[in-house]
Amino acid sequence: MTIPVYLDCDTGIDDSLALLYLLHSPEIRLLGIGAVHGNIDAETAARNTLDLLALAGADVPVAIGARDPRAGGYAGGAPHVHGVDGIGGVALPPSGRAAVAESAAEMLVRLAAEHPGELEVLAVGPLTNLAAALDLDPDLPTKVRRVVVMGGAARTSGNVSAVSEANIHNDPEAAALVVAAPWPIVLVPLDVTMAHRFTEADQAALAASADPAARAVGAMLDQYFTFYQGVYGVRGCALHDPLAAALLVGGITATHAPAVPVVVDDTHGPGRGQTLVDLRHQRSGETDVPGAHVRVVLDIDPPLAPHLRERLLARYGPSVG
Amino acid sequence: MTIPVYLDCDTGIDDSLALLYLLHSPEIRLLGIGAVHGNIDAETAARNTLDLLALAGADVPVAIGARDPRAGGYAGGAPHVHGVDGIGGVALPPSGRAAVAESAAEMLVRLAAEHPGELEVLAVGPLTNLAAALDLDPDLPTKVRRVVVMGGAARTSGNVSAVSEANIHNDPEAAALVVAAPWPIVLVPLDVTMAHRFTEADQAALAASADPAARAVGAMLDQYFTFYQGVYGVRGCALHDPLAAALLVGGITATHAPAVPVVVDDTHGPGRGQTLVDLRHQRSGETDVPGAHVRVVLDIDPPLAPHLRERLLARYGPSVG
Repeated sequence: MTIPVYLDCDTGIDDSLALLYLLHSPEIRLLGIGAVHGNIDAETAARNTLDLLALAGADVPVAIGARDPRAGGYAGGAPHVHGVDGIGGVALPPSGRAAVAESAAEMLVRLAAEHPGELEVLAVGPLTNLAAALDLDPDLPTKVRRVVVMGGAARTSGNVSAVSEANIHNDPEAAALVVAAPWPIVLVPLDVTMAHRFTEADQAALAASADPAARAVGAMLDQYFTFYQGVYGVRGCALHDPLAAALLVGGITATHAPAVPVVVDDTHGPGRGQTLVDLRHQRSGETDVPGAHVRVVLDIDPPLAPHLRERLLARYGPSVG
Repeated sequence: MTIPVYLDCDTGIDDSLALLYLLHSPEIRLLGIGAVHGNIDAETAARNTLDLLALAGADVPVAIGARDPRAGGYAGGAPHVHGVDGIGGVALPPSGRAAVAESAAEMLVRLAAEHPGELEVLAVGPLTNLAAALDLDPDLPTKVRRVVVMGGAARTSGNVSAVSEANIHNDPEAAALVVAAPWPIVLVPLDVTMAHRFTEADQAALAASADPAARAVGAMLDQYFTFYQGVYGVRGCALHDPLAAALLVGGITATHAPAVPVVVDDTHGPGRGQTLVDLRHQRSGETDVPGAHVRVVLDIDPPLAPHLRERLLARYGPSVG
């Protein structure tokens, strides 16, 4: 049995890596994709997703979701990180395909109803669409098997502010709702995603691939590496979204992921957008806090980069449900 | 030349340890002590301080400071941590000495004026008195050599909430002012203080001392160890205030203490009382952020416990300026 998956993304360079990884993962079937504001505007995120899918030979329905966070308007994305087009200026062949008519939130609600207790949600952008889906169907948490979220920071620094990570910071009000809803959540914070990187050797391997989609993603990494050179001091990049994808797929395993209380700061103070992860109980060697429904991934095994590289360069084609 | 020191404290069991350590440190001369609300009410903190000083054979002026935080009232201390009297129910011989007439803030302002450019401030309680001193003398930061503050949490969990430490949490408004003022600050957060502990062997050594003050502090540790057993899973205690004292004295050295932006969350959101320490630049191997006036201590050398134990049991008596 393969896992039915709904992906929510703001494609995005690392979103592109994650999408390509998912397409090369026979453990899952990708039933639908929602686009959301974040790294780039929602329409462009959908366009990038559709064109990359076509280049990879995959046909997955893409729905456009929220154009703006729940409070305030779209802030203009992150051109310094992902480029002005979200994919590092790499011109993908226009697919000619269009987004479906339903919204991303409607798609998620429908897929959950069609696959009750089985659907898994992978959210690698701001959580606006997931919050909208909770508005549409308050019983959604009982129908979804689990929600894997790339977002937040527990013990490590943020990447937008001292304490806040971009996906959460881009819509703290939505994140607060999603994290509080009673579904099993696997939160994949910067603590792990900043520790797993692609290097220039990984990029060179993608560039030498026979697969045009892998080559395109490899080309996108130029922009991403340039940004991360300012962060790490060397060319390379963090593997945020692919790490969350690999955890959902099971290609890697969370070796330390306690279930603990998590609250999102949606004030307008200096902590806005922070995920407050309560790890106080860890000091005594305890792991899970009774009743907590959010697992926070603090360590994984095996290392992500070799696994990711191997999958992206695998000869078998995309697996689509 | 010995260092002239003003101590601000909410005595408190680890405050008592720190005070005894300071009295056994010939590198400094303790010119005055201000008491503040926090672990216990300000009057009791002053009383505990006066009685412990007398038991140690030391005569240092003690001033009563703020009874309440800048916003709201005294919240009742931490009897589960320090006991209902602040010192674990250990009856110190009444000294018969009284606090001086000036307030703690007035004492600090006076001492800074008398020792311009030389006075060092050690604050191991809520920062209400320091904020009040800034109100009295806005030029105070130009007169004080440095301020060593036990407080906050950078990469580790808080001890009052998921993210906030007690001294900062007990008066975030004061802490925000003190941290923003342009004096050199050494912030000693839970990241280091939770990692350095006293064990039952250390307590036994104090209990066997010929010095009645050392024996009294050893007796206080019963209460403190009971609380920390719930935190660590074993009897023992964190060495919060002594660690800050030892850094000021120079008995230990900060081996990793980058100068970085620090902001205190004084909202009423979930992050209230957090010290937001911006360590993002550390990812590239950089250390100091230009213009930052707060050094955040993340590692020390040598380990504190043996140094502290040796000093507390030293045969030479208190050194008072």
